[in-house]
Formats: sequence, C-alpha cells, structure tokens
Amino acid sequence: MMNYQTFFTEALERLQTERRYRVFADIERLAGRFPEALWHSPDGTRKITVWCSNDYLGMGQSRDVTRAMVETAWRLGTGAGGTRNISGNNHPIVELEAELADLHGKEAALVFTSGYVSNQTGISTLAKLIPNCLILSDALNHNSMIEGVRQSGCDKQIFRHNDLAHLEELLKAAGDRPKLIVFESVYSMDGDIAPIHAICDLAKRYHAMTYLDEVHAVGMYGPRGGGIAERDGVMHRIDVIEGTLAKAFGVMGGYLTGSRAVMDAIRSFAPGFIFTTALPPAVAAAAMASIRHLKASNDERQRHQRQVARTKAVLTGAGLPLMDTVTHIVPVMVGDAEACKAASDRLLEKHGIYIQPINYPTVPRGTERLRITPGPLHTDAHIDALAAALVEVWTALKLPLQPKAQAAE
Amino acid sequence: MMNYQTFFTEALERLQTERRYRVFADIERLAGRFPEALWHSPDGTRKITVWCSNDYLGMGQSRDVTRAMVETAWRLGTGAGGTRNISGNNHPIVELEAELADLHGKEAALVFTSGYVSNQTGISTLAKLIPNCLILSDALNHNSMIEGVRQSGCDKQIFRHNDLAHLEELLKAAGDRPKLIVFESVYSMDGDIAPIHAICDLAKRYHAMTYLDEVHAVGMYGPRGGGIAERDGVMHRIDVIEGTLAKAFGVMGGYLTGSRAVMDAIRSFAPGFIFTTALPPAVAAAAMASIRHLKASNDERQRHQRQVARTKAVLTGAGLPLMDTVTHIVPVMVGDAEACKAASDRLLEKHGIYIQPINYPTVPRGTERLRITPGPLHTDAHIDALAAALVEVWTALKLPLQPKAQAAE
Repeated sequence: MMNYQTFFTEALERLQTERRYRVFADIERLAGRFPEALWHSPDGTRKITVWCSNDYLGMGQSRDVTRAMVETAWRLGTGAGGTRNISGNNHPIVELEAELADLHGKEAALVFTSGYVSNQTGISTLAKLIPNCLILSDALNHNSMIEGVRQSGCDKQIFRHNDLAHLEELLKAAGDRPKLIVFESVYSMDGDIAPIHAICDLAKRYHAMTYLDEVHAVGMYGPRGGGIAERDGVMHRIDVIEGTLAKAFGVMGGYLTGSRAVMDAIRSFAPGFIFTTALPPAVAAAAMASIRHLKASNDERQRHQRQVARTKAVLTGAGLPLMDTVTHIVPVMVGDAEACKAASDRLLEKHGIYIQPINYPTVPRGTERLRITPGPLHTDAHIDALAAALVEVWTALKLPLQPKAQAAE
Repeated sequence: MMNYQTFFTEALERLQTERRYRVFADIERLAGRFPEALWHSPDGTRKITVWCSNDYLGMGQSRDVTRAMVETAWRLGTGAGGTRNISGNNHPIVELEAELADLHGKEAALVFTSGYVSNQTGISTLAKLIPNCLILSDALNHNSMIEGVRQSGCDKQIFRHNDLAHLEELLKAAGDRPKLIVFESVYSMDGDIAPIHAICDLAKRYHAMTYLDEVHAVGMYGPRGGGIAERDGVMHRIDVIEGTLAKAFGVMGGYLTGSRAVMDAIRSFAPGFIFTTALPPAVAAAAMASIRHLKASNDERQRHQRQVARTKAVLTGAGLPLMDTVTHIVPVMVGDAEACKAASDRLLEKHGIYIQPINYPTVPRGTERLRITPGPLHTDAHIDALAAALVEVWTALKLPLQPKAQAAE
C-alpha cells in the first residue's frame, strides 16, 4: 500500500534535486511609491525595487482606481455573494462588461474571475459547442490556453510559433470542417508579437474563427489601450478577444469580448463561468476606473515606452545579453537554471532588486532568463541602478558580458 | 462551410425553447442594510429583499472586513501585480494562508482565485500526481469537483450520494491501488450533510486519501467556523479540506488546507495555481479579518441558526412544500421549470423578494425549486413577509399548499 505522505515528500525532493523547487518572495508593494516594496526576508524586512511586476503601468496604485474600489466596498460590500445567476450579478460588473465591449469595439463582453479561467473555460466551451471543431493553436500559447484546448476534447493542431506558412498548411489540410485559431498578441516570455492581420487573412481564406489573447497588451497598446489588435487596426477582424484586468489595469479578473451570440453562448454553457462566485463589485468598479482612465490618457503608455526603450539601451550599453524584443518585455538571458536563480538571489540580497528567475517549465531549458518589466514609474535613476547591479552580479557569477560593455567600462 | 454566427444564435434559441435560458438580475446590495438591495429592472430601479445570497452571514457588509479591504488597498494597491511566484506573493496572502491552516488545524494552506479553481486544479493535480490513483466521487458533487476529477484523467467511480455501503463496495473492489475519496460536507442544493466520520472510517480501512469540500459550511459550523468537520470533531481525519472565502466569509477566493507536503506538492504542480495572478492583498486582508472575527464570535452563527429555524417553521406553518433539511439551506419545491421561473418572477415583481429559480441542470428535472438562504440579518418581519408573499404566489400560480396551512388560514 502506498504511503501518501512519503510519496508527496519524495515528489518534492525530486523537484529540489532538479532545481525546479520554487520559493515565493513575501513582499508588500507600497502604494504611492511603486516600484518600491518591502521584502519580508528570513533575516527581517527590507526595502526593495520591483522589476518584474505585471502591473505594467502601475495602475494598482492609482488614486482613482483605489478610490473606486474603496467607495464601492463601503457602498455595496466586500463580496458579490453569489454566482452571476444566483444573486451575484452586481451592477458594477454589468457596467464593466459594457465598458470592455466598448474598449474592443465588440457587441458584448463577459467577465471571469481570472484571465486563466477566461481562457480555460472560454476556449473549451467555444470549441466544444462547435461540432467537429479543429483547434489550431500557436506552439507558445500560455498554459491557460493549452488547458482550454485540452479540456475541449477537440482535435488540435499545434502550429510553429508565429509561423504563417505552417498555419496555412494545417488550415488547408483540415478541409471544410469548422476551425478555431487560438493565439496571443504579445507572447509574455519572449516579448514578440503575432502577425495578427496575416492570421486574419488566413482565417478568412480558410473560414476559421479567431481567438486572440491580449493579456500582455491591453491597456498598453492602441490609442485607447485596446491592445495590439487596436494598434494594428485589426480588432474588428477577430472573433473573440481575451484580456485581463490584473496586469496593466492593475486589479484582478479576466474577460472575453465578441459578438452578442458568441458571448451569450459562453455565458450560458461555460462551467467555469456559471458555477463560480462573481467578481466583487469593488473589484469590478476598480477595474472599470482603470480602463476608463487608460482609454482617455496616453500619458502612461508614452512614459512606459520611453522607460522601456531607455532600459533596453542602458542594459545593452552595459553589455548585458538582452533578447531583442519589440515590446515592453525585456528578457536578460542566462541560459542555466542554477545561475539564473543565483543571479536573482544576489540581485535581491545584495542590491535590493527583485527580479524573479524564469526557469523550466515556464521557458525551455537552456533559455533561462531574468524577465524585466520596466514601467512608467521606474525612474532613470532606477534604471541606472539596475544596470550597475546586473553588471556586478554578472561579473561576480562569471556570466558573459558583451565586448561593447567591457569597452565602455 | 459552417456559419459560426448563425450556429451560436441557433444554439441559444434551443436553450430558450427548453426554458433553460438564464437572465441575470442586475442588483446592488446595500452595505449596512443587507439583505436589502436595489434591483435595476427594465422598468427602473426598485428596492428588494435578497433571499438567495451565499453571503450566508452577511459578513460582506461587516465594517471590520470592509475596513481591512479599504486600508490594505490604500496601503498596498488594488492588485497583486503578478503570479504567486513572480512578484504577486503579497504579505496579506501569506498571513491569510497561516490563518486558514490554523482554522482547520492543518500544517499549511493554499489560496486560489476561487473555490471553483481550488477544486478543479486541486483535485486534478493531487490525483494526477499519485500513480494509478482511483478517484471515488460522490454522485452529487459540485461541478468544480467533477471537472477536477475529469481533468485528472484518472479512473473514477461514482458512489451513490452519501451511500456508505456503495462506497465500501467500490473501495473493496479497488484492491490495493491508491485511492482518493472526494465529497462535500453540506450539499448546496439539498442541504443535507455527509457522514464524515463513517467515510473516514472507510478511508482508513481501505487506505484511501480523503478530500472534503466545506464551502457551504466554513464560517457557519463548528465552534470557530471550521465547518462540519470541526463541529463533528473529524477535521484531523481529513487529508485535504477545501473551502471558500466567497460565501460565509463574504469576500472572494478559495483555498485548500492539509499537510505541508501535500500543500507544497499542489503549490508546485497545479497549473491553475501557478499560472494565474494572485488574489489582491486587499481581498486577502478582508478575508482574513472575516475569518478572525468568526473564529472568535459565535453570535452570527447563533442568530443564523435561529433565523433559519424560524424561517422553516413559518414557511412550513404556511403550508409551503419545504424539503426537510438539517442545514441553513431551505429549498421550497416546485417541480416544474416554468412554474419555478414564474414563481421567482412574481416574487420579484409583485413582492420585491429576490429568490433565483433553480432549474435543470443545477438540479434534476422534476425537482425544480426556490432555494432560500435565511441569514442572521433577515428579521422576523422579513420572514413573515416572505411567507405571505410565497403563499400569494403559490395561490396565484395554483401550486399545491399543504392542508395544514389551509387550516391555519
């Protein structure tokens, strides 16, 4: 007979042996002082600078967003108190859905408890409803999309990342059956962007539906923060756009937007939507305040892009091995799990700079990295301090710096 | 080629034909005046009384709980800004997990974005990790548990609801392989309770792990609100206890508690935990305030039970067909989908009383019902008004009342 306790203990020991065991840093961000935070380390509490947050624009400390959360909590309470169907359909969530539909130029939107759930239950429900549906899924899609594809039980084909020729080959081979292409706009770990227009051309030619994940783009790209599809003028060609309220919008939750019929079908059939408590009114109100602000204001987006560009320039100038990206995601390559963890630890302990190591299985082995996300609240001084700290760490750990940097020193 | 738009429109028309199409009531609960709320109806805004909330104790309007949310939002911001691993591990969520472990007398706890996700990714990860695991699942388990079982890909056996003989038969037939029994304490639609001690006896005899969903019991039962397992003195015999922060605790989120090794394994392997943004610090702090209050105070639980008992007595006295339950869940049986919807509509429109109809597939056809959840904030006057309204509706719709009531009238 199995000893369950021993079994789990041994499973964890294997993770540690493989250097895959994760330790979570216990932090408190300081509203009004982002990107500064407190780190509750085993040796006491220290002030640190966060360089790996997905609250990309710092909206989580916006006074307007916080005020919306606070006023709504005092007025309507702290929770929704039920599923959307059974007493949980609070007025702020209804308004939020209208706001999101407008953001993406769609007829309707649906809010979920997380972006993860919106992908998982959204994709699986959509594909399951369509008889004999074939899903075509980008090879680098996020885990939540992979789970959605898997749980649909439908046939699937994985196309090579952003590879239009491969996608077309698979579409052509699929013949007349219904097809759903699922992909992302900004891929979070490599920071590259999908050719959305060209994918829509293929979808039209081969009569496929399109499902686009914009979680790393909404709020940050497009004149109103509608994402890369808005920036590229292609929102209207996408059937379903998925986004998050937990990254650039600074709160929590996920959503889908699309035609009234498709949203209503997902609303009516998706178990991960039907059988779960609705988002609290205070969370919905905060998200709406954030979206409204970023629809009207380009200031955060411009400062964001400026600080991203400066971070890339300064780190490259210091000889650090940056992966070349066209977005706000700045991966500094290490290529080894243990060195990556050591670099992260040294940055935090010696320099008070917090950048979580990104190891397998989040990225392929041999591509371990520090994933840096500069925001509009990182000052030029923060960037210079980051570059100096990274060079110290790279030198101490005998990691390779580019020749250019050594000349500059 | 399929016309996707037409296809979805027709799928929705089928739902309407089958009377399964759901319309969400757009409501605003009024903090400080629960169970009163505003209903944004097509004809304007009206004041109503909510009788179907899962914020069972009204903690969602507690000033202490709200203050914890508000103060934390001003101090740490509105969102976590990342996954638990990547910068989202905020200090309040760390404290909340310690509080939850203590509540259930376990070594560790893990917080999820919802109870749905905790069941779905918790059960599937746990069962997937154990080689050749057989899952034994109660026939009335919640959809989130069913999805967890399904997604594990493991062999499963469904035992008849609360049927110890059937469970034993299946355990015996399974032989030496590892086994996981998944069940609930309070079943939400029938309001009955599992024989937890006896199930633990069987688990011990046949060497199975136990996984217990207490979402409709935490906060409400047991001297510290630890649930039915606490009330029955059986918490220590359960391997994994799952609960929610969104019902009696009045906020949002879900959790698991258990041994350090089992929690650490789920933390390390569960995709629905790893790849999703953490609960906002303000939400975690609010939940912690609620749990702490209910650990120390029996007042809400006592008033809850009193008003539940009074509601049952008054409705039964009025001749309404109550399902006999031993918990705070009071189903009034209708037995027909259309009549159930009509009763709910008339209650809301004519009497300002909001009770959502519960139809198939949430309950089996022929057992359609109004599911009433009295709370400590429903006054005796609310209860009397409810009884009068139900009798009016039952009479108007020609639904059967018990003879007793007719005598009493």
